[in-house]
Amino acid sequence: MIVLGIDPGYALMGYGVVEQTGNRLHLITYGCIETYAGTPMQHRLRTLQLGIRDLVNIYHPDDVAIEELFFARNVTTALMVGAARGTAIIAAAEYTDNLYEYTPMQIKQAVTGNGKADKHDIQAMVKMLLNMQEIPKPDDAADALACAITHCQAGRQKEQFRMK
Amino acid sequence: MIVLGIDPGYALMGYGVVEQTGNRLHLITYGCIETYAGTPMQHRLRTLQLGIRDLVNIYHPDDVAIEELFFARNVTTALMVGAARGTAIIAAAEYTDNLYEYTPMQIKQAVTGNGKADKHDIQAMVKMLLNMQEIPKPDDAADALACAITHCQAGRQKEQFRMK
Repeated sequence: MIVLGIDPGYALMGYGVVEQTGNRLHLITYGCIETYAGTPMQHRLRTLQLGIRDLVNIYHPDDVAIEELFFARNVTTALMVGAARGTAIIAAAEYTDNLYEYTPMQIKQAVTGNGKADKHDIQAMVKMLLNMQEIPKPDDAADALACAITHCQAGRQKEQFRMK
Repeated sequence: MIVLGIDPGYALMGYGVVEQTGNRLHLITYGCIETYAGTPMQHRLRTLQLGIRDLVNIYHPDDVAIEELFFARNVTTALMVGAARGTAIIAAAEYTDNLYEYTPMQIKQAVTGNGKADKHDIQAMVKMLLNMQEIPKPDDAADALACAITHCQAGRQKEQFRMK
């Protein structure tokens, strides 16, 4: 099973592609789609849309796992992050109906066994689980990989995380 | 000039199409794209995307005027409304780069001459300016028409409202 994990953001949208074979996880790729302040909003969203569209067309994920957003600094930020998240969902949904969502706490719990783990704990576990030489950078990409790993580990329970 | 006005919402997205010839405004159509609670988010956003896509392909607007959102009841609502707005922007931007945004206060000011007008004042002016028999319903559609009218009235000033 190939899983595309997404950490939805407006300036930086993290992504990570992981393959699961039996109990083994294998890193395929990771990175960020970047958009630039000062660029009109429709172009920034379009960049995100085309970036996600490319990822699904290149890596053919069976499932897409998106980090669920619950908070933002304020309503203005939430409107922008919401737009970025909506764009990622639209682009992924053109390709597959298998969209899943995990909260930050579910991701922490799944990756480290501790729902209150800090950023560094998660990144260290991502590095170990994917047999990487270095901690993945930037943070948004590491978060996307952690989300993909969480989905792999959900196994038969994954249906309860299907996007509602 | 044909203008598509949009009042972005998640459950109800209002739209209104207005044609301006010289100083005259002519109503072409208005209504709402509706999405239903209990439907998965990707399907609700897809409904909004396809709805806006249909509108631009049928009515060929020269410009698209979107009501700018500044507030929401809370961050959770803002994330959803932001996703709906992002979806509308993505769908409109596939068709044209001529996207404009107006705040609720700018719309009130343009339509009624009073930045603090209430909902009923605006709807009564929309009815009069578009020579309608009845006040347009629902509110979301009336708001979208008011946004389209505001863009028509912006005239040569419109570039300052181009989406940033």
